[in-house]
Amino acid sequence: MSEFGFIASVRRLFESVPSNGFEGIGDDCAVFPFGEGESLVFTTDLLAEEVHFLRRATSPFLLGRKSLAVNISDVAAMGARPVASMLSLALPRELTGEWADEFMRGYHDMSEHYGVKLIGGDTTLSESGLTVNVVAIGRVPENCIKRRSAACEGDVVMVGGRLGASAEGLRDILRGEYDTPNALIHKNPEPQVAEGIWLGSRHEVHAMMDISDGVASDLVHILEASHVGAVVDVESVPAVSDVRTAVCGGEDYKLLFTVAADKADGLRSEYAAAFGEAPFVIGRIVASESPSIEWHSGGRIITPDWHGFSHY
Amino acid sequence: MSEFGFIASVRRLFESVPSNGFEGIGDDCAVFPFGEGESLVFTTDLLAEEVHFLRRATSPFLLGRKSLAVNISDVAAMGARPVASMLSLALPRELTGEWADEFMRGYHDMSEHYGVKLIGGDTTLSESGLTVNVVAIGRVPENCIKRRSAACEGDVVMVGGRLGASAEGLRDILRGEYDTPNALIHKNPEPQVAEGIWLGSRHEVHAMMDISDGVASDLVHILEASHVGAVVDVESVPAVSDVRTAVCGGEDYKLLFTVAADKADGLRSEYAAAFGEAPFVIGRIVASESPSIEWHSGGRIITPDWHGFSHY
Repeated sequence: MSEFGFIASVRRLFESVPSNGFEGIGDDCAVFPFGEGESLVFTTDLLAEEVHFLRRATSPFLLGRKSLAVNISDVAAMGARPVASMLSLALPRELTGEWADEFMRGYHDMSEHYGVKLIGGDTTLSESGLTVNVVAIGRVPENCIKRRSAACEGDVVMVGGRLGASAEGLRDILRGEYDTPNALIHKNPEPQVAEGIWLGSRHEVHAMMDISDGVASDLVHILEASHVGAVVDVESVPAVSDVRTAVCGGEDYKLLFTVAADKADGLRSEYAAAFGEAPFVIGRIVASESPSIEWHSGGRIITPDWHGFSHY
Repeated sequence: MSEFGFIASVRRLFESVPSNGFEGIGDDCAVFPFGEGESLVFTTDLLAEEVHFLRRATSPFLLGRKSLAVNISDVAAMGARPVASMLSLALPRELTGEWADEFMRGYHDMSEHYGVKLIGGDTTLSESGLTVNVVAIGRVPENCIKRRSAACEGDVVMVGGRLGASAEGLRDILRGEYDTPNALIHKNPEPQVAEGIWLGSRHEVHAMMDISDGVASDLVHILEASHVGAVVDVESVPAVSDVRTAVCGGEDYKLLFTVAADKADGLRSEYAAAFGEAPFVIGRIVASESPSIEWHSGGRIITPDWHGFSHY
């Protein structure tokens, strides 16, 4: 079964349990409205050695940073400010000393930069590989929460940065080249935290998520949740190298969002003024029976076999 | 470095980050007061194959139950009602089908019994062992929260059930006897959820935690946090087998709590009426420069070399 098939079956299984005030599986984060118009949001990511990273290819400091970065990227993608985290480590015995201290210095570096408090965790030995699990918690005014389900017909689809560098970096690493510029981007991603919070406050921004598996996969999640389709012009995808890598590669952690068409130009100008570069327009939301992407190139429909990245 | 040494160094490292309204590391759960006199509490536990369980010795159904049980035990130990959980699974490829489904049925069984909603998680492949990380979230009125730091001189120390069965069960399992009565207790612990919530509502209950590493270790956490000592009568420890196993063995998941002396008898009677058996008095809290346990046997001080259980 695929990861998404498994998640769907788990969602069905848990329909029998009351929600207890939580909005659960289906977005970048779960949401708990706690009164006075504010919510907490929750997300978790597990990183397993040899699946998500090669221990020999990264430093413990950068791995510590990245472990938190990929989680606060999900928080920011809801329009929320990351405020707290929990960290679980399963450490092979040879990593319990200086390696673990250096990992924690990296984790702390990312925490301090975004003001994220470590509020709990668990540390155990591992008899096999190194495993890292992080939970990030964010806080957001309820009317600023951005969900995958809010895309509207006519919206402009934008991405918050150039795509594909992380996938190129992963290729470098798998070739044994651990220190190329793209490999460093792969090992040390910067989540778009300020951008996510800013976009959260803009009512013309409808749906939002972060790109962790590539636009070819992640945009479909927005389309499924919003019951719409999309047209994407491949020439407008801000690809670091080729378009295929840009839309199918994983771990870019750039924001993907949809904006009311009549406000799109104004939003891009203000975003550029705030963050130095305008977001990239890659397509538009259309009415559709099927939650799929229609790829256009040179004004014509093309049918490439593009799918997102999967660790599962 | 020991697990507790590592945790202490991490706490120091994070003193530079603002708390953002969270009460963090140092208790069974982190606490977030969210207004109207209520708080959310958060805890996480990671279970690693060959360290916390042997895949061949348990069923996926029971492992699913236990993964949640050990976390909601921490929630109940704060006096809180468990309301939500997040689950991360790193699955070896051969476990992604029926095994994972059966694990989820066990996890769901425990969730449904206590009304705990699964609100998120992560599923990935593992190239090494099976790793399970669970986060449990509870909800509690602020004046019902029980912390480790609240034990007072003169308090009576009680435990919510008999101790040592899980450790005996682990011994059986390590001998290859996977289905003895104690092995089943080890593989399928029942957290004292109703008891924890009830004790949370009683103001004469001061400090509380759950026993996961044995009284010899866990009571010391209460003593450290409360700046007191304790006297424990070894004859009064409700040992399933021998006293050493009862106080040093891990994973009993019974509640350990201290009660104002003048209310201790009344509380025991009401607890027995509610739950069928009175909690066991094992000692009392005393003023002490050192957060240590003075063990008494036959009215005399003894100095056994008893320490709690550690997976680290």
